[in-house]
Amino acid sequence: MNATVPSPELAQRAVNALKFLAIDGVEAAKSGHPGLPMGAADFSFVLWSRYLRHDPKDPSWPDRDRFVLSAGHGSMLLYSLLHLAGYDLPVEELKRFRQWASRTPGHPESHLTPGVECTTGPLGQGLATAVGMALAAKMADARFPGLFKHRVWALVSDGDMMEGIAHEAASAAGHLQLGNLTFLYDDNKITLDGNLDESMSEDVGARFEAYGFRVLRIDGHDHRAIADALDAAAAETARPMLICCRTHIGHGAPNKHDTHKVHGEPLGPEEALATRRALGWPEAPLFHVPEDVRALWDARAEALAREHAAWREHEARWLAEHPDKAALYRAMRERAVPEDLTGLLAGARPPTNDATRSLAGAVLQRAAQLVPALVGGDADLGGSTKTPLKDSPKVLPGRFEGRNVRFGIREHAMGAMANGMALYGMFIPFTATFLTFSDYMRGAVRLAALSELQVVHVFTHDSIFLGEDGPTHQSVEHVAALRLIPNVEVWRPADGLECAVAWGEALRRRHGPTELIFSRQKVAELPAGPAAEDVARGAYVVLREEGGPPDVVLLGSGSEVGLCLGAARALHAAGRRARVVSMPCMERFAAQDAAYREAVLGRGTRRVSIEAGRTDPWHRWLGDGGLAIGMDTFGASAPASVLAEKFGFTVPQVVARVQALLG
Amino acid sequence: MNATVPSPELAQRAVNALKFLAIDGVEAAKSGHPGLPMGAADFSFVLWSRYLRHDPKDPSWPDRDRFVLSAGHGSMLLYSLLHLAGYDLPVEELKRFRQWASRTPGHPESHLTPGVECTTGPLGQGLATAVGMALAAKMADARFPGLFKHRVWALVSDGDMMEGIAHEAASAAGHLQLGNLTFLYDDNKITLDGNLDESMSEDVGARFEAYGFRVLRIDGHDHRAIADALDAAAAETARPMLICCRTHIGHGAPNKHDTHKVHGEPLGPEEALATRRALGWPEAPLFHVPEDVRALWDARAEALAREHAAWREHEARWLAEHPDKAALYRAMRERAVPEDLTGLLAGARPPTNDATRSLAGAVLQRAAQLVPALVGGDADLGGSTKTPLKDSPKVLPGRFEGRNVRFGIREHAMGAMANGMALYGMFIPFTATFLTFSDYMRGAVRLAALSELQVVHVFTHDSIFLGEDGPTHQSVEHVAALRLIPNVEVWRPADGLECAVAWGEALRRRHGPTELIFSRQKVAELPAGPAAEDVARGAYVVLREEGGPPDVVLLGSGSEVGLCLGAARALHAAGRRARVVSMPCMERFAAQDAAYREAVLGRGTRRVSIEAGRTDPWHRWLGDGGLAIGMDTFGASAPASVLAEKFGFTVPQVVARVQALLG
Repeated sequence: MNATVPSPELAQRAVNALKFLAIDGVEAAKSGHPGLPMGAADFSFVLWSRYLRHDPKDPSWPDRDRFVLSAGHGSMLLYSLLHLAGYDLPVEELKRFRQWASRTPGHPESHLTPGVECTTGPLGQGLATAVGMALAAKMADARFPGLFKHRVWALVSDGDMMEGIAHEAASAAGHLQLGNLTFLYDDNKITLDGNLDESMSEDVGARFEAYGFRVLRIDGHDHRAIADALDAAAAETARPMLICCRTHIGHGAPNKHDTHKVHGEPLGPEEALATRRALGWPEAPLFHVPEDVRALWDARAEALAREHAAWREHEARWLAEHPDKAALYRAMRERAVPEDLTGLLAGARPPTNDATRSLAGAVLQRAAQLVPALVGGDADLGGSTKTPLKDSPKVLPGRFEGRNVRFGIREHAMGAMANGMALYGMFIPFTATFLTFSDYMRGAVRLAALSELQVVHVFTHDSIFLGEDGPTHQSVEHVAALRLIPNVEVWRPADGLECAVAWGEALRRRHGPTELIFSRQKVAELPAGPAAEDVARGAYVVLREEGGPPDVVLLGSGSEVGLCLGAARALHAAGRRARVVSMPCMERFAAQDAAYREAVLGRGTRRVSIEAGRTDPWHRWLGDGGLAIGMDTFGASAPASVLAEKFGFTVPQVVARVQALLG
Repeated sequence: MNATVPSPELAQRAVNALKFLAIDGVEAAKSGHPGLPMGAADFSFVLWSRYLRHDPKDPSWPDRDRFVLSAGHGSMLLYSLLHLAGYDLPVEELKRFRQWASRTPGHPESHLTPGVECTTGPLGQGLATAVGMALAAKMADARFPGLFKHRVWALVSDGDMMEGIAHEAASAAGHLQLGNLTFLYDDNKITLDGNLDESMSEDVGARFEAYGFRVLRIDGHDHRAIADALDAAAAETARPMLICCRTHIGHGAPNKHDTHKVHGEPLGPEEALATRRALGWPEAPLFHVPEDVRALWDARAEALAREHAAWREHEARWLAEHPDKAALYRAMRERAVPEDLTGLLAGARPPTNDATRSLAGAVLQRAAQLVPALVGGDADLGGSTKTPLKDSPKVLPGRFEGRNVRFGIREHAMGAMANGMALYGMFIPFTATFLTFSDYMRGAVRLAALSELQVVHVFTHDSIFLGEDGPTHQSVEHVAALRLIPNVEVWRPADGLECAVAWGEALRRRHGPTELIFSRQKVAELPAGPAAEDVARGAYVVLREEGGPPDVVLLGSGSEVGLCLGAARALHAAGRRARVVSMPCMERFAAQDAAYREAVLGRGTRRVSIEAGRTDPWHRWLGDGGLAIGMDTFGASAPASVLAEKFGFTVPQVVARVQALLG
């Protein structure tokens, strides 16, 4: 988009305004990172004032460019840009940087602040999330060709460049030929602890060329060079681009620039004052924005609003010209899910018994028919996770019409890219790999939870019962570890109905990720009868005791519910009244009212939990005198039936322990 | 080392022997991965029969080369090599591949099988661990110049190449100029799900050149080309090397080679038979090794044993010539730790109160003086984690005499490299970063635990009370999540004494990792008095109730023990008898006898736990009617004192909840 080029003097004042908003914000908070905002102010100003296509008055414009500050510690730069650009982020919020209930937290949070596209801070995440956004944009474009023309921009730092997730994501971006993606690398040679060359000396540009990027190298303070590079980026379609912007951290701070002292702490009153004097900035007031700078941004905002309005007309025309696409467009914009989805999926579940990964795989096929926004993929284990969507092609380099993303063996990037696809706004993404490798993507799962993103993570091969692959692949702690992340729901279904409910609830859960945990091995058949609504409450009675109050309540999840049933029947034969409760989703059950919980668990009853994993989450449900049967050691390589025997997961072993408990 | 070059015919038979041992092992187990062993047999044979410097009769030889099979799914290749080379791995073990209590588990486990240098399977870990081994070898060489000449070799796969941890570690290896490290890349273009070019198309060689590697590209089935490349690798000193070996997966299987069908499942009887016929291999017996092949390996083993014996003489001479180094050498070989280390550290702790990261930092300085094997580093947060060792230089490119490793912002590789340094055998490595970024290195922590490695992971900034950086950096679930990993001890000390005990116990714990969790903020002063031995039991009474049995026992860890004390004093003023228990290490306390546990916790007493994190681990200690005070949501960006108020961690708020509980 054409934009007026300001005079060099005005541009300099505008850059200084950015720098001093950041300096003043950090000084006021007495904590924060002024160095990056100062060093990156030049190229950020050029990008935002002349290239970035967005509408500060309507951050939901579908055809807006996405800007991601991957180096989230430089948050005051982003807040200053948002403020000046005209977002609903008044200067009072800048003054409350890093304070309780402000919209300017220490690191950007997308669910808090208008215009923040992505929660960043943990390094590498923003870069990888931007790749997911760019992929989503390509997939949207393939579905609605000619409708969109937005791009994705990300400001990335040395720290991002070192993180493995960034390597993974950049490799994927190059592979997929995401020509709509531009990284602006703030190449300042300084890390929090000192000079970059103490810990990194690779040729970043050459590395990205090896991934398939187009790479430009510029002086990150030279506005003409910046504009030339951004012109090239804006015209690029075939390859993602890396612009290496050589900058000086703390640019403008006369004594501290180019040192790590300016990285992670305030300049301090003296250096802040010295910087004001060096750059000819008034000593008062703080948070000063010159009139002509304000006018420059206001004019830009007006131009952008006109652009948005023009696009709305274009959108209406496009939809009129493509009536066959209108329903799909609406469904994807709304990420529409049928009201009775869970019921529909429950009806579609396969009647046979099987591994829950297979049962869930069948449910997923039906879900994909019912939810056009649903797309996803796996980390090269699709044959095992059973998640590839039938009747849809793979997403391949330059070919984005399919729904099956081949993330490659890049679990962490897969997680972040799914976050980016969710943030983009037209997709409900899912990922899939073995449960043990959830460790590799935990950083991304956490950000999905914090950012309140609808992402579904499928994890199969969920316990020692994957068997021969051995303890490197056998999850022991992972179900419990996922349950610990706030705002996550973890489902570990026991049969086809529970698989259907789990997928259904995941697709209905709008503001947080859902972890779906499935078995490699076949599960036992559960008694018919429970309603999907009961399953959706997180726990319910599978087998009710007869002839009096229960002597014991057996609680289980997933493949161990069958074991509970076997044990309950054996206990019954031995004259004990045993109830079996399936608890596929602890978080859901904890959210039920006390009456329901007591109706399921009984009152003052001995309880025994059985789950082939760490027992920590179960103690809260057991009460005094309870027994948690689980795995407190690593597993071993052997066939599943042998492992069941060796680790105490057979019916006779469970019965013996319950009998000993009951006395 | 010179070794006889076998005739092409003998070499072919030897390669076939490797292939069929792997084929037969996988067929017998009815599961496993035959494709990699078949494709990599050629270059593995050349490496092992002519270059690898080791002593199968004594796997502990300090000057042995290290070989890491990063692509651990090809374990039958490694087991076959170990068997033929003469390790204590008889053919019966090959026949029991993937069976209970065999030494041939599905993926290699270093603590189980002689000659397995590294537990591998989760992709990328082996590559990164090998970098740690190579770094350790360089650091050993810098301390004892002229004593060693071993190298590190790793077989890496497409899957390894895609994992972020491998990118991080390769970047670090190139940066550090680890000229003793060679990766043999089994470049077979096939992944478990299909053709590699569906998910990866980068120029791997160019990528590694950008990292600073020397890169060779060869036909991985051409023995002469392989030998030439290995000659070059063996002579290299300045740069790590990548040898791209273009191979064909399942090489020799007439119908399935070069397809993903041969990747992750047995050939099946038909294809196994067809392969026998195609390669002229007897149909019976299975696990056949021709006499001349056996003789080749036996001769090699004898030559290697002589080499080892010669090195032992060299070692004795070297030590005689360097009497000043002898004590250090012995201490590092034994990874010696003073018997009374914990007491010594407790005596050396600083008297002032401070953040536990600072208290522990002072303890660490003393520990480094007492334990010469202790080395470590951080992920560019040393100024915050307080872990850089004084009086020792940084480890920098080509300069390895120091003890302070600059891992860079590469947490996952840091974890795996520390594992490699521990496996190497002369170091006790530690790592350091913020606790929230433990998510980024969980895969490596898990392998340390599974492999029974002595590694110390320091994690600081351990709760919402890091304050302004906000929820992206505030740990809520991480302490609990680390406690879930089997064979891990997690310490969260409350004061200087507990910091000293935690470091002391970590350095005395030989067969598993220890997680040390420290606060950013200052902690309250605890009453003087407890003995280090009591602290070492994992929990102890900090403040005992007076005048009768306790109305309530307050349990806490880390910075919340001070809160427990404040609450107890306020309860006392209100006429309640409250006991305070500090529980710095739950795993330790769980291992105490029931009498000690009861003496600490009381019997039938109301208990309240306070820890600024998820409460799951505490329920087992609370019993009926207990109360767990913690964090079940993400934190927020604000000063710590504000967060304490907002999230209920002030004395009046805790007292109110306890009073309500007691009624």
